[in-house]
Amino acid sequence: MKALVYHGPNKKSWEEKPKPVILESTDAIVRITKTTICGTDLHIMKGDVPEVTDGRILGHEGVGIIEEVGGAVTNFKKGDHVLISCISSCGKCEYCKRGMYSHCEKGGWILGHLIDGTQAEYVRIPLADNSLYHIPEKSDEEALVMLSDILPTGFECGVLNGKIKPGDSVAIVGSGPIGLASLLTAQFYAPAEIIMIDPDDNRLEVSKTMGATHTINNTKEDAVKKTKQLTSNKGADTVIEAVGIPATFELCQQLVAAGGTIANIGVHGKSAELHLESLWAHNITITTRLVDTVSTPMLLKTVQSKRLNSKQLITHHFNLSEIIKAYDTFQNAAREKALKVILING
Amino acid sequence: MKALVYHGPNKKSWEEKPKPVILESTDAIVRITKTTICGTDLHIMKGDVPEVTDGRILGHEGVGIIEEVGGAVTNFKKGDHVLISCISSCGKCEYCKRGMYSHCEKGGWILGHLIDGTQAEYVRIPLADNSLYHIPEKSDEEALVMLSDILPTGFECGVLNGKIKPGDSVAIVGSGPIGLASLLTAQFYAPAEIIMIDPDDNRLEVSKTMGATHTINNTKEDAVKKTKQLTSNKGADTVIEAVGIPATFELCQQLVAAGGTIANIGVHGKSAELHLESLWAHNITITTRLVDTVSTPMLLKTVQSKRLNSKQLITHHFNLSEIIKAYDTFQNAAREKALKVILING
Amino acid sequence: MKALVYHGPNKKSWEEKPKPVILESTDAIVRITKTTICGTDLHIMKGDVPEVTDGRILGHEGVGIIEEVGGAVTNFKKGDHVLISCISSCGKCEYCKRGMYSHCEKGGWILGHLIDGTQAEYVRIPLADNSLYHIPEKSDEEALVMLSDILPTGFECGVLNGKIKPGDSVAIVGSGPIGLASLLTAQFYAPAEIIMIDPDDNRLEVSKTMGATHTINNTKEDAVKKTKQLTSNKGADTVIEAVGIPATFELCQQLVAAGGTIANIGVHGKSAELHLESLWAHNITITTRLVDTVSTPMLLKTVQSKRLNSKQLITHHFNLSEIIKAYDTFQNAAREKALKVILING
Amino acid sequence: MKALVYHGPNKKSWEEKPKPVILESTDAIVRITKTTICGTDLHIMKGDVPEVTDGRILGHEGVGIIEEVGGAVTNFKKGDHVLISCISSCGKCEYCKRGMYSHCEKGGWILGHLIDGTQAEYVRIPLADNSLYHIPEKSDEEALVMLSDILPTGFECGVLNGKIKPGDSVAIVGSGPIGLASLLTAQFYAPAEIIMIDPDDNRLEVSKTMGATHTINNTKEDAVKKTKQLTSNKGADTVIEAVGIPATFELCQQLVAAGGTIANIGVHGKSAELHLESLWAHNITITTRLVDTVSTPMLLKTVQSKRLNSKQLITHHFNLSEIIKAYDTFQNAAREKALKVILING
Repeated sequence: MKALVYHGPNKKSWEEKPKPVILESTDAIVRITKTTICGTDLHIMKGDVPEVTDGRILGHEGVGIIEEVGGAVTNFKKGDHVLISCISSCGKCEYCKRGMYSHCEKGGWILGHLIDGTQAEYVRIPLADNSLYHIPEKSDEEALVMLSDILPTGFECGVLNGKIKPGDSVAIVGSGPIGLASLLTAQFYAPAEIIMIDPDDNRLEVSKTMGATHTINNTKEDAVKKTKQLTSNKGADTVIEAVGIPATFELCQQLVAAGGTIANIGVHGKSAELHLESLWAHNITITTRLVDTVSTPMLLKTVQSKRLNSKQLITHHFNLSEIIKAYDTFQNAAREKALKVILING
Repeated sequence: MKALVYHGPNKKSWEEKPKPVILESTDAIVRITKTTICGTDLHIMKGDVPEVTDGRILGHEGVGIIEEVGGAVTNFKKGDHVLISCISSCGKCEYCKRGMYSHCEKGGWILGHLIDGTQAEYVRIPLADNSLYHIPEKSDEEALVMLSDILPTGFECGVLNGKIKPGDSVAIVGSGPIGLASLLTAQFYAPAEIIMIDPDDNRLEVSKTMGATHTINNTKEDAVKKTKQLTSNKGADTVIEAVGIPATFELCQQLVAAGGTIANIGVHGKSAELHLESLWAHNITITTRLVDTVSTPMLLKTVQSKRLNSKQLITHHFNLSEIIKAYDTFQNAAREKALKVILING
Repeated sequence: MKALVYHGPNKKSWEEKPKPVILESTDAIVRITKTTICGTDLHIMKGDVPEVTDGRILGHEGVGIIEEVGGAVTNFKKGDHVLISCISSCGKCEYCKRGMYSHCEKGGWILGHLIDGTQAEYVRIPLADNSLYHIPEKSDEEALVMLSDILPTGFECGVLNGKIKPGDSVAIVGSGPIGLASLLTAQFYAPAEIIMIDPDDNRLEVSKTMGATHTINNTKEDAVKKTKQLTSNKGADTVIEAVGIPATFELCQQLVAAGGTIANIGVHGKSAELHLESLWAHNITITTRLVDTVSTPMLLKTVQSKRLNSKQLITHHFNLSEIIKAYDTFQNAAREKALKVILING
Repeated sequence: MKALVYHGPNKKSWEEKPKPVILESTDAIVRITKTTICGTDLHIMKGDVPEVTDGRILGHEGVGIIEEVGGAVTNFKKGDHVLISCISSCGKCEYCKRGMYSHCEKGGWILGHLIDGTQAEYVRIPLADNSLYHIPEKSDEEALVMLSDILPTGFECGVLNGKIKPGDSVAIVGSGPIGLASLLTAQFYAPAEIIMIDPDDNRLEVSKTMGATHTINNTKEDAVKKTKQLTSNKGADTVIEAVGIPATFELCQQLVAAGGTIANIGVHGKSAELHLESLWAHNITITTRLVDTVSTPMLLKTVQSKRLNSKQLITHHFNLSEIIKAYDTFQNAAREKALKVILING
């Protein structure tokens, strides 16, 4: 089969690889019908994720059709139409029982990381019973590719951890795909204001079409001052960090209201300063989370019932064989006005 | 001044009464600008609420302008534009501190019940600091009259107690104003299905325009069977009782899914049978609540930010002096296709 | 092997049965070292649980040593010392993922009910990975037999559902083993008062040694009046029903404070009257639950750390071969002053 | 009357001051019977709290007898025996309604800070109805002085924010009075382990008598290594910071388990480094809080019912007129083996 293979920093190729086979009785082999590229894949390509070794097939998102299942798989059978979760879960360990699938003792984020991933014609999915989801008939496959990673990430790490309530004010720092995924799912809780903060005017414009009530280009305006103005001088009840650098995390500390929450989604490479000299008395909460994908069944229902239009995040389509070109588009997101790209197999 | 006065079962008149005066330093006198009639007022008129005695001015909803405040009132002053809460709260007793204003040791539901109410040109509001809310500039008064009672009731007793979550299935038994208030505010939490159940086709039609995903006329269809069909044979995660008779409460027990919640709003005059012989093992929760109006500030924000269009509940307008006619319309709700009526003073 | 076999209402015998074998790859065979008898077993013996058919080995509690595991079992191996949960859980279905193991699509309460149980020398445990727990070295086996069913039941259905908080007042109606299991685990949350209500003076005496702050023999005293006296005339914040008949459930409705919770544990055979005519306005919550045993890992930690002395519930010991005599003792609990009996295999 | 007066950094005197009088109708004048000294008072004496100006009477804790109340006070009358809260609350503003009394628009921490405090023969208590609590008959006054500040602080900021659950592991960094207040109230939730970390062996010994299961002198042992050993290599579910310097806050980040919480109590003067480069994926929560004293009624019940022995925190007694000596003892806590001191008026 063909697959997108990592060969060290900045080296990748679309090349022939052996088709995966069942290794454990809990495995399933899935023929990919649609997949996508994640910001994390770009990090890997830069060499920022050293656990990814030469020869690894990338990708941890996608939908497809089951080709074969191992003997211990009971929820799925050949021919089933499935959504692949970016997080593999055994359903048996302490962490899985607590809903912390991200810390599963046998799973967690392994696809396209520690084992071969989904940017290929076929993929082996370990722990299949707890790591795949049935796709209801007549579903829109593209809408569901957004449920492999980006929407549960925006929802769990940003919105759920951020404890958004009706009438609240929300500020989201970063309007890339993850920030927009938070924006879309924040609306499940009817906040009064959702303020998007980003240096890219195009992304801010897009965010307005997705439900932002206000936008701030923080290269042109003082984000703290404007957020205070919009919130009776209190700051935002929930601030979502969707970038992952010290400067934006520190901005969040200035944006949050007393009694509020900073929900971090960003993947950070460095420590940040925490201003306890003022925050110690402000009754705030800061949360971090690697997505657990426990909310996938809930998100599936919101997509099916049309409460959530996840396809809004998709800007480009490619054939899977054009994946090198797709990476190029996704990497130059600002220039290409790209959010999520869909890769179609066949 | 003129007021609507109760003179025993089925007797009321629009008559001259003395203008109220400050009795306690925590009182405010409010000139009513708009008020409405509640289902509870009809109960009183039938003689079902014996604490209401001959000579009582009815009404516990409305907006107006402050005429005068007592010496201990600090949040409000003459001329302030205010929303009146149906529940009076002292802010000092154990119950108020726990957010159970309905059980306030000095307040609770007293307006138009134990003291004179709001269906008058002026009303005395005790415990004003904790029982009135500032109306923001440029607000729509009519939209806010719906926040005195019906929306907090539908929201707190039905939606909050019902613990509605994104993707859930919700069944609301009763599509009168209270059931519709639950329908509107249930959408704060993005449920996948909201099934309205009522014997009146007009109200079911109205509910569709307000966000119901399915409707069942339970005089024509088997509500249990159809609800099961709509919920993969599981029943509804949340069932809201918005009628108040044994038959509807017992219907709720058949509609609720294992692990689900029955949130009672209905004002019951009789006990109902609780089918513990099956429910004991179904992991369900049943809640009751007299509205506390703790959610009023939150609801105000959702109206201001246009997340909630509370005016949809209003079907008729009258001058306050036509209140006898307004009662007649509201009492014949099915014939008149009436939901909430607005009474305008002057 | 020898086992206690049900042969229809009031007929049981200790007889030879084939030793169980692995039927599914997720099974384990456990040699029982200690087991016990549950109140539910007495219900079965009366013929109240018609799903239990002639020939069934009873019992759903116990500890033992693993003899053999199926090919898909990964958490356990031959020789492991294990605690058996009364609830079998697949870890893969919607209910298991929500922590509602009692409603597991392949498991739930099946041991000694729909399949052969633990009152035998050996038992087949289906879905072993999610239905057994490792026993830490140097643990006291007897203490852990109490964790198969009675302690998670008292804790989850009574204490957790009852939302007990520090300083609260708690009333527990019924001082049998289940009521006492709630009493022991209620103390995890430091309530100010725990009032035990029962007609048996011996059990009330026992409850005092286990932490009850007050006791009421409701055949001699007015339980409602005395509870009000003990709670500043408010009633109890949490009322736990640990009997299962209409009279005690109705008593609970009179005992609960406004804003409080009735947590039902009792297995009911009949419906009860729910006094909505008064309760509709009292802001109360009523819960039901078949134990899920999600709290077993937590309870294990409290036993190991000596926060919970579960052995207090044990009054009698028998050899497993004397099980008929043990049933007789357990059945005549008042006469024998029996709580839980331990049956030792070998 | 006599009072302890601040005259700038390191200058204080016990001197004659005018007896306070009612200034607002919501005030009460309380004759102090017992008071104490807080760690915050030492900060003030060092000049670290510049809002405290020359001439200010210090102190924000104590019990006493009401001398006089303003016209709007309804919960209290002359002669009432009362507990003074360190936080004043109006009960009317947005923050008070949300239970965030620390951020009350008219109150918050003002006693002995922005207005004269309790280290005096008499004190004026503003917003008396919501800032005082009735002391039940036959209560132990000394036990209740601990409820003015230190116990609600340890409980709300450490234990409640730390979300301690039965069976959890807890690490408390700092074994001064605040850390010990957390230790005492952590036991409301039956954690399996409570590990106290401090450089003072005496305080660690004291903590064992108050319920610590393990102690670590972090000048002699590696606190991270030992905590991991005690928690199956996972770290503590809840880590409480009770010191207030960057080094201890950074230690907390190394002690916390994935999925756990760091609850900050410490009053910090500097920012700390937050290691997002590892924590971003560890699903942790960090909280800060200025005590709200919303838990005071609950804590009163736990003291009355003997679930909480708050007197254990008291090591020294002085006459109020010896307050300068008491400060000296409290300031040299290690040398004097001092925790809380009680000052008796008369």
